[in-house]
Amino acid sequence: PISNDPRAGPTNRYRESPYPMLPVEDAVDVILANSPAPETINMLVNGLLVGYVLAEDVKANDPVPAYRASIVDGYAVIVSENGPSTKGMFPVASISHAAPGEIPTLQRGQIARITTGAPLPPGANSVVMVEDTVLRSTTDDSQEEKVVEILTDQVRADENIREIGSDIKAGEVVLRKGEEITAVGGELGLLASVGKAEVIVYRKPVIGVLSTGDEIVMHDRTGPLQLGEVRDCNRPTLMAAIKGWGFHVVDCGIAKDKPGSLEKHLRNALRNLDVIVTSGGVSMGELDLLKPTLERSLGGTIHFGRVNMKPGKPTTFATVPLKTNDGNPATRLVFSLPGNPASALVTSHLFILPSLQYSSGKQGPHGLPRVKAQLEEDVRCDPKRPEYHRVSLTPGPNGLLHATSTGGQRSSKVTSLRRANGLLCLPAKEWTAPKGEVVDALLIGGL
Amino acid sequence: PISNDPRAGPTNRYRESPYPMLPVEDAVDVILANSPAPETINMLVNGLLVGYVLAEDVKANDPVPAYRASIVDGYAVIVSENGPSTKGMFPVASISHAAPGEIPTLQRGQIARITTGAPLPPGANSVVMVEDTVLRSTTDDSQEEKVVEILTDQVRADENIREIGSDIKAGEVVLRKGEEITAVGGELGLLASVGKAEVIVYRKPVIGVLSTGDEIVMHDRTGPLQLGEVRDCNRPTLMAAIKGWGFHVVDCGIAKDKPGSLEKHLRNALRNLDVIVTSGGVSMGELDLLKPTLERSLGGTIHFGRVNMKPGKPTTFATVPLKTNDGNPATRLVFSLPGNPASALVTSHLFILPSLQYSSGKQGPHGLPRVKAQLEEDVRCDPKRPEYHRVSLTPGPNGLLHATSTGGQRSSKVTSLRRANGLLCLPAKEWTAPKGEVVDALLIGGL
Ligand code: NWS
Ligand code: NWS
Repeated sequence: PISNDPRAGPTNRYRESPYPMLPVEDAVDVILANSPAPETINMLVNGLLVGYVLAEDVKANDPVPAYRASIVDGYAVIVSENGPSTKGMFPVASISHAAPGEIPTLQRGQIARITTGAPLPPGANSVVMVEDTVLRSTTDDSQEEKVVEILTDQVRADENIREIGSDIKAGEVVLRKGEEITAVGGELGLLASVGKAEVIVYRKPVIGVLSTGDEIVMHDRTGPLQLGEVRDCNRPTLMAAIKGWGFHVVDCGIAKDKPGSLEKHLRNALRNLDVIVTSGGVSMGELDLLKPTLERSLGGTIHFGRVNMKPGKPTTFATVPLKTNDGNPATRLVFSLPGNPASALVTSHLFILPSLQYSSGKQGPHGLPRVKAQLEEDVRCDPKRPEYHRVSLTPGPNGLLHATSTGGQRSSKVTSLRRANGLLCLPAKEWTAPKGEVVDALLIGGL
Repeated sequence: PISNDPRAGPTNRYRESPYPMLPVEDAVDVILANSPAPETINMLVNGLLVGYVLAEDVKANDPVPAYRASIVDGYAVIVSENGPSTKGMFPVASISHAAPGEIPTLQRGQIARITTGAPLPPGANSVVMVEDTVLRSTTDDSQEEKVVEILTDQVRADENIREIGSDIKAGEVVLRKGEEITAVGGELGLLASVGKAEVIVYRKPVIGVLSTGDEIVMHDRTGPLQLGEVRDCNRPTLMAAIKGWGFHVVDCGIAKDKPGSLEKHLRNALRNLDVIVTSGGVSMGELDLLKPTLERSLGGTIHFGRVNMKPGKPTTFATVPLKTNDGNPATRLVFSLPGNPASALVTSHLFILPSLQYSSGKQGPHGLPRVKAQLEEDVRCDPKRPEYHRVSLTPGPNGLLHATSTGGQRSSKVTSLRRANGLLCLPAKEWTAPKGEVVDALLIGGL
């Protein structure tokens, strides 16, 4: 009475995985096709906007600069084609600071002190740098300039002046829908410069991270390990990675390998979060309850349960339909990653990142940046599965990135993730890629 | 009675800057020589540790794995050199899940169900994958396996077993002093795996950002600009950049160009923060009060006041000695950046980042990663000053990074920072670097 139907009792499991093995690229396509389209929200323009993608074109309300401004510290002067030379002694008329207020009109024969960024006084049409002048006399209390000598007659009209709108024209589109507000600051600075106080951006999904397994204990629990216990490495690691990508992440704890525990944890998470990431419990063991729980108890659909890659073969992706608290239908994504730490982290980068990028409005191509890397040593490929070999990438003197293996690549080996900022994309082939070879790589961290 | 001494009245300013012009490299050296040495603190091992640098070598207390563990889901078996074949029918003795507890010893002639990661039962010395077996009979309630047939006799001793310490040996140094806990997760995962709950790391400096200038108004202030008003672009931009580097940043607001306002803002900031970043007020104007306030009112030392670069010439660096609230002497760093937005952001990357990296224990070389970039268009150099030309860098098919200019590079032009993730390092020379040329560049953002 032994069937291959996972809906039957605990011993009635498959002897072979019932899930076809997808190529990595197909798995990503399936994920993107099932990821929710980006939704828009309004946000204020401040530092919290970093990492969001604009859902509207942003136009400048005002020109920048908004007035004719001096580019240097010096003296505003009047230059006219056949008029008197600017060289010589001039009475200093008024001081125009870079501050709001009424500025008196400059009279012919006078000059006016002006600071960088200040509005040109009406009547003036050029600015002489202070370095090209000498102060000849001041008021008796030495507090005000009276006479200044200009040493040059090379002054032309409109010199050292930033014209209205010469940096940004009024009405100009300064940022386009789909552009990201990066931490480096340029886009935030643009919004600030043109006086945009609120923008429409794409909401970012909120992600929960759940570890599963009876053997998993809190990594910082005091006291020695009991036989069979394993410290939870995946939850802190995945949470850090997801936060590092710029998303808000929620700690969903550890679920036991009991259908009740797993289901309860998942239900709680699904109610409030857009995406659930689990690790462990997706391979062939009879305690690998994730797939049956997702399908049977939660009414979800498993889109794939195996991917042709190393590490990460049992990677599983599901969607679960539900009604939100306010009664609206919604679809949650569940990424069930293999329990081995290297598998969990590698697959999170390859599969979860593109989905989150898509759902937060980021323009494609989605996923890690693909680069070329030159091998610093021979690297053996796996003959059967495309492998993602962890490496340290550093810019080399020849302009290429140089790849140094992090060592033993067994999927349980956390040391393979130490200082790893790249993944070599090795083909499935009976081949040792020789030192010096240039291969594709994915960038998972900064250089 | 006009002197060149800035300590005299407001009109008695220099006609030429009294500060010698330093090359960029020398300016960085001066900054690093004056940056406080890293201090250590204890921190718990969790996500907040990301971005910190270890101040101790971390050793594994326990081996990983801590017990002989199965690598696959299957059956624990006893293999002996001249013993019976593993092929055939076997009674299933007990089930060893990956969970703590006492595991009965496996008897010769029996096999035991085992899941990935579970401890090998005493007596067993190999594991057969479930795929290589057929379940032949169960208990009457179908809940327990009774007889399983093993289909292969290719099973050797010690197969599919992760030996104790084969991932990490007990006592092994898993992370060294000076290594950073990256967001990508490997280092945090290592600490978690070996049960490290607390580590000694280097404290990170806390940075305050202050805008200066009578003309500067809050960027999100409602209502139109008055003549001469400029929206504060630098404060949000610099704060985002510093936060993006991984540091804690404090908003110090806008100081007016009055000695009292500037001094008060600076005193407040200096009392509580390690590093103060200001923008504006460092060039030749008589309202450029930063240098005199730092030197005269606060007793600070200006280490340099001009740097030979474009943009960023008036960049100023000072240290201010003071007594902290608990009476200890301390030195604060003040970076007074030029007011023009592109100058402020570029100089923050070139001068502030290395200092913060040094003081937070990061190992050198400090500063932005230096890469090679191939030009997608002709780029004119400045004949007099080394220029940092803002570009978008993207990985090209030839393995090199390709650089596209962000357009007009005037230092007031915020659009030059849009999508800029790199700075070309152009030499001071009468030269147009041609399309296709490979030049040095600094990476300011992700690829
Ligand atoms: N017969 C058969 N057996 C098979 C496969 C197969 O094809 N056939 N495939 C392989 C592959 S092939 Mo690979 O990625 O290509 O290398 S993973 C993979 C593996 C996935 O198993 P899974 O069910 O996902 O995880 P489990 O819960 O069993 O844990 C796995 C390990 O990880 C640890 N672990 C869990 N959670 C955490 C945590 N939070 N922190 C730290 N460690 C943790 C846990 O202790 C255990 O040692 O099963 C294998 N077994
Ligand atoms: N005679 C003489 N004059 C000179 C120089 C020289 O050699 N000789 N050098 C140049 C150079 S050369 Mo350059 O980097 O190589 O391009 S900067 C530079 C400049 C630096 O002047 P500074 O004193 O630092 O700043 P100020 O306060 O004057 O502002 C500068 C601009 O920036 C705006 N600004 C301020 N703060 C903000 C803010 N928070 N948000 C948005 N905009 C802001 C502010 O409105 C103004 O338009 O002075 C020039 N003048």
